[in-house]
Amino acid sequence: MPKPYTFKPGSKIKISNFETRVEKTEYDKKSAAEKIHANAIVMADHARRLYAENKRSILLLLQGMDTAGKDGTIRTVMRGMNPRSCQVYSFKQPSEEERDHDFLWRVHKVAPRKGNIGIFNRSHYEDVLVVRVHDMVPRKTWQQRYQQINDFERLLSESGTIILKCYLHISREEQRERLQARIDEPQSNWKFNQADLAERKFWDDYQQAYQDALIACNTQHAPWYIIPSDRKWYRNLLVSELMRHTLQQLDPHYPTVTDDLSQIVVE
Amino acid sequence: MPKPYTFKPGSKIKISNFETRVEKTEYDKKSAAEKIHANAIVMADHARRLYAENKRSILLLLQGMDTAGKDGTIRTVMRGMNPRSCQVYSFKQPSEEERDHDFLWRVHKVAPRKGNIGIFNRSHYEDVLVVRVHDMVPRKTWQQRYQQINDFERLLSESGTIILKCYLHISREEQRERLQARIDEPQSNWKFNQADLAERKFWDDYQQAYQDALIACNTQHAPWYIIPSDRKWYRNLLVSELMRHTLQQLDPHYPTVTDDLSQIVVE
Repeated sequence: MPKPYTFKPGSKIKISNFETRVEKTEYDKKSAAEKIHANAIVMADHARRLYAENKRSILLLLQGMDTAGKDGTIRTVMRGMNPRSCQVYSFKQPSEEERDHDFLWRVHKVAPRKGNIGIFNRSHYEDVLVVRVHDMVPRKTWQQRYQQINDFERLLSESGTIILKCYLHISREEQRERLQARIDEPQSNWKFNQADLAERKFWDDYQQAYQDALIACNTQHAPWYIIPSDRKWYRNLLVSELMRHTLQQLDPHYPTVTDDLSQIVVE
Repeated sequence: MPKPYTFKPGSKIKISNFETRVEKTEYDKKSAAEKIHANAIVMADHARRLYAENKRSILLLLQGMDTAGKDGTIRTVMRGMNPRSCQVYSFKQPSEEERDHDFLWRVHKVAPRKGNIGIFNRSHYEDVLVVRVHDMVPRKTWQQRYQQINDFERLLSESGTIILKCYLHISREEQRERLQARIDEPQSNWKFNQADLAERKFWDDYQQAYQDALIACNTQHAPWYIIPSDRKWYRNLLVSELMRHTLQQLDPHYPTVTDDLSQIVVE
């Protein structure tokens, strides 16, 4: 099965060394869609057991440049899940109340409850990405955050949360095409934002910020997965596989009922 | 001025070596009350500046055996503060939703907002105290929590929160008298709880748990203050002094208005 790129905690990487498009794969668009559908059925069953067991949780965190496909991945991979125990949080610009607290405050509040799967569309990593690129806090502040993030993620991990962090990796050319498509296709116009063009000018700064964040926060308890994302179906397949595999590894069980129910008759 | 006991981060202490009642002091009940009143006026003024400045916050955390006087301290020391920017959180038994998250989840949610003073009546330390004494989680779990607490408190500290942790230190005999008073005095009956007598049987276990927590979590960024609390007025005086001193050290300022307002006329 195709897998995301991973790398050893503590080791240095160059983000530009990772492919954004993997050519060699036994899958194509159609067979990937079938596999994602099959995975969704397995995932729904296991998510139900996870909920009944009520001991552990999963946090799937998605980061990536504009147009990398965070929304599309969630839509394609997670449909089929019971929303009762699967919540998506999209982190936008922080509110005034959120800015009046440490940067992890709003994130911790929505950490997944036991038995649940939490999905972060963007996350606390924005506080070492956009915040860094645009000098929104002093250098010392965002540098401290790597350790703060690692400590926070370790707390969640030690408390029973499995953390999966996916970096959706696209090329600069692929982003150009996708932004252009948002302009050219009327039904995609609503997704287009002038600000995206301004952000695109900071491409190299963002790549550097991503690289540093991936290196600094790639831990045993919360590893990064680099997802080649120039092809949407391949990106979706990788994330779907990761989620299915994680749920199967967890192997959650329905709680065993210790009382003997055999004599109970409901009248 | 009388001061709480403090000790170096990393150093070991024996809690039984600290006095619960300090005899030598220039203060008495009456002059202490006057000083506390004078402090309250200074504190209210500085709290107002802290609020206007909107950059930093204070967290006053109170722990102590039953009857040590957490409620009484807050009532006596903090009256005079504007409740707009001063909030007390009393941590009770966690709810089902709270138990379905890591133990710091409910604490982080109520961490003080910039410009505010947060007061914790009990706190996350209960998760290495009562939880440990009654074996409510495996040993490994509560042992991990010391580091998790230190990391969490460092996050708050690095984000602008001044953390003051007060251990209200009473003797076993003093607790006996106070519990007896709750039984003997009709207007205090409502405070009496049969469970307190059961808890009292675990006195030594609690003292050990407090000692370990004080040693493990006495950091530069969040030090413990040991408050001799057998005499209520002395206890209150120490906490009042600590709070006044902290606010004066912070020396918060009203934001300077850069616009020239001199020509503005309100019509």
